[in-house]
Amino acid sequence: MPITFAPMLPITIINGPNLNLLGNREVEIYGNQSFEDYLLELQKRFTFFDILYFQSNIEGELITAVQQANLKSKAIIINAAGYTHTSVALGDAVASLSIPCLEVHISHILKREPFRHHSYIAANATGLIAGLGLHGYYLALQYLEHHLKVKF
Amino acid sequence: MPITFAPMLPITIINGPNLNLLGNREVEIYGNQSFEDYLLELQKRFTFFDILYFQSNIEGELITAVQQANLKSKAIIINAAGYTHTSVALGDAVASLSIPCLEVHISHILKREPFRHHSYIAANATGLIAGLGLHGYYLALQYLEHHLKVKF
Amino acid sequence: MPITFAPMLPITIINGPNLNLLGNREVEIYGNQSFEDYLLELQKRFTFFDILYFQSNIEGELITAVQQANLKSKAIIINAAGYTHTSVALGDAVASLSIPCLEVHISHILKREPFRHHSYIAANATGLIAGLGLHGYYLALQYLEHHLKVKF
Amino acid sequence: MPITFAPMLPITIINGPNLNLLGNREVEIYGNQSFEDYLLELQKRFTFFDILYFQSNIEGELITAVQQANLKSKAIIINAAGYTHTSVALGDAVASLSIPCLEVHISHILKREPFRHHSYIAANATGLIAGLGLHGYYLALQYLEHHLKVKF
Amino acid sequence: MPITFAPMLPITIINGPNLNLLGNREVEIYGNQSFEDYLLELQKRFTFFDILYFQSNIEGELITAVQQANLKSKAIIINAAGYTHTSVALGDAVASLSIPCLEVHISHILKREPFRHHSYIAANATGLIAGLGLHGYYLALQYLEHHLKVKF
Amino acid sequence: MPITFAPMLPITIINGPNLNLLGNREVEIYGNQSFEDYLLELQKRFTFFDILYFQSNIEGELITAVQQANLKSKAIIINAAGYTHTSVALGDAVASLSIPCLEVHISHILKREPFRHHSYIAANATGLIAGLGLHGYYLALQYLEHHLKVKF
Amino acid sequence: MPITFAPMLPITIINGPNLNLLGNREVEIYGNQSFEDYLLELQKRFTFFDILYFQSNIEGELITAVQQANLKSKAIIINAAGYTHTSVALGDAVASLSIPCLEVHISHILKREPFRHHSYIAANATGLIAGLGLHGYYLALQYLEHHLKVKF
Amino acid sequence: MPITFAPMLPITIINGPNLNLLGNREVEIYGNQSFEDYLLELQKRFTFFDILYFQSNIEGELITAVQQANLKSKAIIINAAGYTHTSVALGDAVASLSIPCLEVHISHILKREPFRHHSYIAANATGLIAGLGLHGYYLALQYLEHHLKVKF
Amino acid sequence: MPITFAPMLPITIINGPNLNLLGNREVEIYGNQSFEDYLLELQKRFTFFDILYFQSNIEGELITAVQQANLKSKAIIINAAGYTHTSVALGDAVASLSIPCLEVHISHILKREPFRHHSYIAANATGLIAGLGLHGYYLALQYLEHHLKVKF
Amino acid sequence: MPITFAPMLPITIINGPNLNLLGNREVEIYGNQSFEDYLLELQKRFTFFDILYFQSNIEGELITAVQQANLKSKAIIINAAGYTHTSVALGDAVASLSIPCLEVHISHILKREPFRHHSYIAANATGLIAGLGLHGYYLALQYLEHHLKVKF
Amino acid sequence: MPITFAPMLPITIINGPNLNLLGNREVEIYGNQSFEDYLLELQKRFTFFDILYFQSNIEGELITAVQQANLKSKAIIINAAGYTHTSVALGDAVASLSIPCLEVHISHILKREPFRHHSYIAANATGLIAGLGLHGYYLALQYLEHHLKVKF
Amino acid sequence: MPITFAPMLPITIINGPNLNLLGNREVEIYGNQSFEDYLLELQKRFTFFDILYFQSNIEGELITAVQQANLKSKAIIINAAGYTHTSVALGDAVASLSIPCLEVHISHILKREPFRHHSYIAANATGLIAGLGLHGYYLALQYLEHHLKVKF
Repeated sequence: MPITFAPMLPITIINGPNLNLLGNREVEIYGNQSFEDYLLELQKRFTFFDILYFQSNIEGELITAVQQANLKSKAIIINAAGYTHTSVALGDAVASLSIPCLEVHISHILKREPFRHHSYIAANATGLIAGLGLHGYYLALQYLEHHLKVKF
Repeated sequence: MPITFAPMLPITIINGPNLNLLGNREVEIYGNQSFEDYLLELQKRFTFFDILYFQSNIEGELITAVQQANLKSKAIIINAAGYTHTSVALGDAVASLSIPCLEVHISHILKREPFRHHSYIAANATGLIAGLGLHGYYLALQYLEHHLKVKF
Repeated sequence: MPITFAPMLPITIINGPNLNLLGNREVEIYGNQSFEDYLLELQKRFTFFDILYFQSNIEGELITAVQQANLKSKAIIINAAGYTHTSVALGDAVASLSIPCLEVHISHILKREPFRHHSYIAANATGLIAGLGLHGYYLALQYLEHHLKVKF
Repeated sequence: MPITFAPMLPITIINGPNLNLLGNREVEIYGNQSFEDYLLELQKRFTFFDILYFQSNIEGELITAVQQANLKSKAIIINAAGYTHTSVALGDAVASLSIPCLEVHISHILKREPFRHHSYIAANATGLIAGLGLHGYYLALQYLEHHLKVKF
Repeated sequence: MPITFAPMLPITIINGPNLNLLGNREVEIYGNQSFEDYLLELQKRFTFFDILYFQSNIEGELITAVQQANLKSKAIIINAAGYTHTSVALGDAVASLSIPCLEVHISHILKREPFRHHSYIAANATGLIAGLGLHGYYLALQYLEHHLKVKF
Repeated sequence: MPITFAPMLPITIINGPNLNLLGNREVEIYGNQSFEDYLLELQKRFTFFDILYFQSNIEGELITAVQQANLKSKAIIINAAGYTHTSVALGDAVASLSIPCLEVHISHILKREPFRHHSYIAANATGLIAGLGLHGYYLALQYLEHHLKVKF
Repeated sequence: MPITFAPMLPITIINGPNLNLLGNREVEIYGNQSFEDYLLELQKRFTFFDILYFQSNIEGELITAVQQANLKSKAIIINAAGYTHTSVALGDAVASLSIPCLEVHISHILKREPFRHHSYIAANATGLIAGLGLHGYYLALQYLEHHLKVKF
Repeated sequence: MPITFAPMLPITIINGPNLNLLGNREVEIYGNQSFEDYLLELQKRFTFFDILYFQSNIEGELITAVQQANLKSKAIIINAAGYTHTSVALGDAVASLSIPCLEVHISHILKREPFRHHSYIAANATGLIAGLGLHGYYLALQYLEHHLKVKF
Repeated sequence: MPITFAPMLPITIINGPNLNLLGNREVEIYGNQSFEDYLLELQKRFTFFDILYFQSNIEGELITAVQQANLKSKAIIINAAGYTHTSVALGDAVASLSIPCLEVHISHILKREPFRHHSYIAANATGLIAGLGLHGYYLALQYLEHHLKVKF
Repeated sequence: MPITFAPMLPITIINGPNLNLLGNREVEIYGNQSFEDYLLELQKRFTFFDILYFQSNIEGELITAVQQANLKSKAIIINAAGYTHTSVALGDAVASLSIPCLEVHISHILKREPFRHHSYIAANATGLIAGLGLHGYYLALQYLEHHLKVKF
Repeated sequence: MPITFAPMLPITIINGPNLNLLGNREVEIYGNQSFEDYLLELQKRFTFFDILYFQSNIEGELITAVQQANLKSKAIIINAAGYTHTSVALGDAVASLSIPCLEVHISHILKREPFRHHSYIAANATGLIAGLGLHGYYLALQYLEHHLKVKF
Repeated sequence: MPITFAPMLPITIINGPNLNLLGNREVEIYGNQSFEDYLLELQKRFTFFDILYFQSNIEGELITAVQQANLKSKAIIINAAGYTHTSVALGDAVASLSIPCLEVHISHILKREPFRHHSYIAANATGLIAGLGLHGYYLALQYLEHHLKVKF
C-alpha cells in the first residue's frame, strides 16, 4: 500500500543497444509493447519513484549515463543488452557506483548462447533478475522500494 | 518435511543443502532470520497462495520433491544451493516440469567463485533472481502473482 | 525398493534419477510404457534370469545398490541417468565390482549436450548401449546370456 | 569388396581401417576369429536379413559405401574404427542417410585415450554399442530385427 | 562486356566428399540441381574459361587433383566439404600452389557446428566465399575474371 | 547486361572502424583507392541499385545504421572491421534484420590472428566474402542482383 | 607428555562413499582391515579423545553429519572419497564450520586421475593428509592433540 | 632541467572510459588529483612538448582521436582503460600509426583480474608502463624526450 | 607404387601426402633433389638393406602399406607428412606392428604451427628424427643397422 | 615413548627456495621460529632418527641433494616450495628414488593460487601433508617411525 | 657478482639469465652497449643513488640476491628475463619483500610469444616497464627518485 | 665440469639434470652404461671431432655452458632432460646461438606424460632425435659430420 507523503526518489533505468526496438520487432520473444509505454505503467505503480530513463546504442554513452545517475539518483536499474557480455568499461563504471545497481535481462541469458552466460555488470552489481520479461523491471523497482525502506 | 499453510493456489518452495542453517550461521551474509520465520511473513503477504515448503540436504530428495511439486502445485521456487552447480539430475527433474519454476539465490552467484557461475537449474527454469537476499523469494512470489494472473 | 521375480541367475537392473517418471512424462521421447511394465516383458523373454530391479533418485542409495548387487547377482545393468556425468562416487562403486556391468542409456547421450558426453560409469563398466530406447535393456540382457554362456 | 549372401532384407555392415586385421593380430584384445568367419555365423542366425559387407582402409571409400548402402539396403551397421574420431566427412555421409544407422565398436572407446571419446558418427547415428566385442554386431542386428518389426 | 577472341583459360573446380549428392538429397538445403547441370550454366556464362571439374570422396585424390591443377590450370576453386576442417594434408597441397585458389562453401560454415569454423584450406587460400549457395562458385569465377584481368 | 528501366533498389553498405583510412594508409595491404572513389565505380556498374553508404568508428552508430537500413533498404553489405570479432551488440542488430545481410572483409580474416577467426556478424548474416580485396563489395552486390532476381 | 585429568574431547571422523567396503575389497590397495577395527586401535591410542564415527554413501547425510559435528565435537576428520571432487554442497558445509577440519585420503589423490586432483573440501579445510594409508587418520588425530594443546 | 630554445613538439595524451572520474572517486586507489590538474604539472615540467589531451568514454571517439593524433602530433601516450582488454578496433587504430605510441596504466593490470592481463593495445604499441600511478605519464613523456632526442 | 632394389634385409620407407613433390617445389625448404634420386644414394650406402619404397597421397593406402610392410620387411621408416597430425587410423596401423618403426620429418615439426606439434604416429613408434632434412632418413637407416645388429 | 636401543636411522629433510627466511619474515603466516630451531625440537623427539638437513634456493642443488639422500638415508621429507609447481627435473629426481619420500607444505597449497594446486613432486612421492604448519614435518617423521616399523 | 658504486641510497638492479650477453649478441634487438657500460651512465645521472648490480644465469642465485637486496637496499629493479615467466620461486622471493620492486623488460614481453605474456614477478611487484629498451632502467630509477621523495 | 678429449673440430655435448645417474639407476629404461663410458666409444668412432662434455643439475650452469660452447665449439648436442619442458631461459640461450644445436632425448618424449610433449629447446634448435636410446647421440654426431661436410 503506497505511502502518499513521499518526495519522489529519483531512480534511473538504463537500457542498452537494440532495446530501442522493443515492441517493434521479434514480438514473439519480447512482446509488442514499447518500453516507453511500459514505463508509464511502471511510473503509475511506483509513485514514490521519479523514474528517469536513458537508452543508447553507444557503449560510451551508457558509461556516461551510469556516471551521471550516480550523482542524481538513488539507484540504477540496468539492462546492458549485448554490452553485458563484452564491456569491461561499462563494468568499471558500475564498479565505481556508490548507489545500488540492479541488473535486469528480459530473456534468460543463462539459457542462451555460451557467450551470454558471462556478465561484466554482474561482477559489480547488487543483484540480477533474468528471464522474467519486462516484469523484471517491475521486480527491480519493488526490490528498491524494499531496500530503500520505502515499503516492506 | 513440508510445512503446510492455508488455502488457495499451492506454490512449492524448495531449498537445498545447508539452507537449514539460515539464521544460525554466517549471519553477516545471510541475516539472522530462519527461513521458517521468513515463510510466515511471506504467507501473510501472499494470501492467494498456499505456500508449501521443503528443505533437504539430499540431492535425490530434492529431485523427488520437484517431481511431486509438479503434481500438486502451480509453480516452484527453487534455491538448489550447492547442487545448482553440479546436479545434472536435478536439472533433469526441472526440465520435465509442466509448471513454471523460478530459481532464487540469496547471494549473487555470478560474483562468487567461477564454479558458481554455471547453473544446471537455469538451463531449464523460467527465470533467475540472484543477490537480493531473502527478498528474492518475495519477488519470485510477486512474479507468480503476475504470471498466474492473480494480480497485476 | 527391489522388485523380485522368479528363479535362476540373478541379474540386477539399476535405474537412476527421474527414471521413475518413465511412461508418465515426455512420452514422445521415452514412450508411454512404465519401466515396471517393461520389466514384465523382459522377464518373460529372459527365462534364465531372475531380474532384480532397483530405482532411486538418491546417488548414495544407488551406490549401496551397486555394492549389494555385487554380492547377490551375476551381473549389473545400470542406467545412472543424470549421475552418469557427475558421480565419481558411483563410478568408484562400479570400479570395485567383481561381476560384469553394462551401462545402458535410453537416449543417445553423445548426441545431447556436451556435459552428457562424459560418463564416470563408462570408465569402469564392461560396455555401453545408448540411443536404442528401452530396447537397450533387452540387448544388455541378450549380451549377458551370451557372456554368461547361458545361450549363444 | 562386398560379400553377398542370400535373400530378404538387405542390411549393410561397414568396417573401417585396420579391421581387416581382425583375427590375425592383437588376438588377446580382438579374439582370433576373422570378421568374414563371424559374418557366416551372423548370417546363419539372422535369416531375415541379407547381410552385405564392406571393409576399407580408405576414408573416401567408406563414404561412398555409406552413400550406396542408403540406396540399396534397409539399415547400416558401421564401425568406422580410427575414422570415428576424426572424419567430419564420414559423419556428413551418415547425416545424409534416410535409413537407420547403428554405430558399433568392439572395444570400449570411452575407456581408451581421450581422443577416442568423441565420435563424428555418433552425432548422426541412431545409437551406439561399444565394448561388447564382436557380439556388438549381433546386438545391432537384433535391434534392427526389433526396429524393422521383423521380430520382437 | 565479354572479349570474344579468347583462348580459353583453364580453371579447375574441385569438390570434396558428399558433394556428389548435390541435387539428390537434402534439397531443402542444397537445392535440387546437380552440380554437373550447374557447371553447364557456369561454362555458358564464363566463356573465357575452360572449366575443368573434379569431385572425389577420397582425401588423397583431392590432394593429387590440387597438385595437378597447379600444372594445368590458371586458378583453383575448391570446396573441400568435410575435409576443410580436418585435412592438414589438403591444406599443405594448397600451400604449395603457385596459382590463386578460392575457397567456396555452399552453406555458411561459420554458422554451423564449432568444428566447422576452422579451415585448413583458408590458411593457404586467396579468399573465401561462404553461405551464398551454388552462386558462390559463380562469384569465384567472376573474381577470377577480375583478378586475371580478363574483365573488370 | 544491365536492364535500363529499373526503379533503383536501395542497398546500404556499412563500414566499421578505421575503414575511413582506406587509400591513405597501409596502401600495400589495402590499395591506394579511397572507399568513396570505389563507391562511384560500383554505382556506375550496378545501375539497378541506389547505393547508400555509412561509415563510423563508433559501434553504437553502426548498430543504429543497421537498424535504419532495415527500414529503408533492400539489403545490407557490412564490413564491421574490428567490431566483427567483439561486438555481441552489433551481431544482435544484424540478427533482428528482415532483409539479407552480406558480410565482407577486404583481408582474409581466417588467415590473420586467432581472435579474428570468430565473427559475431557471421552467426546472423546470409553469407561471407573475405580476402578478395575491395572486389568483395563488387561480388556482394553481384550476389544481391542474383538474389533479388534483378539479374541472373 | 600426556595430561591425565582429561575429560574426553569429542572428535568426529566422517567417511564418505564406498569406504564401508574397506577391508573387504581391493585389499591390495586399501589393506584387509575394516575401518571399524582400525577405529578401536585409534581410540586405544588417543585416550584424550572420544572418537565419534559416521559413514554414509549419501552426500546429503554427510552434509548433515558435518553440520551436527560442528555442534557436538571439537574437530572433524573427513575423507569424503568420491564426493571430494564433485560436491560443492559438502564443501559449503565445511566452509560454515567453526571448528578445525582435517581432510584425509588413504590413497594419494594427486597421483590418480586428473579429476581427483581437485578438492572442494580442501578450499575450506585446515589441512590435508594424503597417500599415507589408514595411518593418515592417526596423523590427523596426532595433529589435533597438538593443535588443541592436549599434547606437544 | 628544461632546455629553453624549444619549438614545442606536439604530443597527444588519450585517456579512455571512466578516467574522467580521476580525483573524484576511488581516491584511495587513484589519488585525489584530477587529470586536468596533473596535466598542468606535466606541461610545466616538459616544456619542449605541447601536450594535447583527449578523453572520451566512447570507443569510436578514441579511435578517431588516435587517427587524428597521427596527423598532428609526434607521439601518443594512451591509457585505454577498460577498452584495453576488449577493443580490437582500437588496437587496429594503434597498429596503423606511423608515430610512437606508449601505453600507460595507472594500476598494475597484470595484478588484477585475469581479463585485464591481455591488451589489444600492447600488441601494436612501442612499450608499456603499468602500476606506477599518474607518474606513469611522466615517465612516458620522459621516454619521449629521450626517444625524440630532445634530451638524454 | 613400390620401387624394389637389391638383396639382404628388407626395410620399407613410407612417405605420405605431398612428398611426391619433393625436388620440384619449395626447393628453398626441401631442396631440389627428388626422393627417388635420394633413394639411390641411400641404397648405395646401406648395402645390407633392400629398401622398399612406397608413397601415396591417400591415407588408407598408407595404412595398407604399413600393414603389408609388417609382413614383408624388418622395419619401417615413415614420414606421414600431413597425416601425422590427424590420422588416428594410421596411428592404429603403426600400433599393431611387430617390427620397429621410425618416424622421420624433413622439417622440424615442433617449430611449425601448433597443430603440427602432435603426432599420432609418435605415440606408437620407436623413435623420432625431425628437422634434419633428407638426412633424417639416412640416420634412421643407420639406427636400424645398429638396432638390427647389422653394424655398430 | 621412545625405544632407546636404536642405531640412529638417517632421514633427510630437504627444504626449497625461500624457506631459509622462516622465522624472519611473514611471521603471521609461517610463525617466528627458524627452521633450524625447530629441527632441534624434532631431533629431540625423534631419537631413532639421525635427521640430516639441506636447504637451497637453487633447483639443481635440490636435485643433487635428492640423489645423494637416496644413497645415504632411509627416507626423504621434502618441501620444494616454489619448485613444487614448476620443476619437472626435481620431480624426475624424486621418481628415481628407491626410498620413501614424503612431501610437506607448511601452508595449504590447494587453498592458494591455482598454479600451486599442481605438484610435480606429488606424482612421484609417497604421500602429502599440507596446511598443518611446521607440525607437518613432525607428522611426516611420525609416519616414517610407523612405516619403517620403528614404532606403532 | 655485485659491482659497487658510490654513496647515498642503495638501489639494487638484478638481471636474469642471458642478460650477460647484452651488447655482444642480437645487437639489432638489444643494442651494442654492454649493461656494465650502461650502468656507468645511469650512476652518473642518478647521483642520489648507490646502484648495486647483480647478474646471474642461476635462478636460485637470483632468489638469494632478492632476499639480500631486501636487507641492504631501498628498492629493487629486476629484469628476470626467461625466469619471469616460469619461476614461482622467484615470484615468492619478490612477494616477501618489504621494499618497492620495479620489473623492467628491454623488449615488449606482451608482443612476443604467448608464454612471455605471463609474469610471476608482476603479481608481486610494484609496477612494470616493458619495451622501452635499456631506457626502461632509467625510467625505473626516475620513478624511485619520485617515489622515495628524493626528487619530484 | 667439462671433460676434454683429443684434437680436431670441437663439439660440445651438454646433458641436463639427473643424467649423471645414467648407468646406475633405472637400468631397464636407460641401460647400464654410464655416459662417460659411452663418450669414450663415441670419441673413438668420431675421430674428426674433439668432444667436450658438460653435465649439470643446475639450469643456470647449463645456460652458461650453452653460451660458452657457442664461443669455443662448432656445434652443440643438448639433452636438457627435465628442463626441456620448463626452461624458457635455456631456450633463450639456445636461441642466441650462431652454431647448429641438435636436441637429443634418450626416451621418446612424445610418448610420455603430456607435459613432456613440449620443448622450449625445440623452438630454437636445428633438429630433434628422440626415443633411440644413447644411440641418439651417435646419430647427432653423424649428422654433424654430414652437415659440417666432414664426411658424406
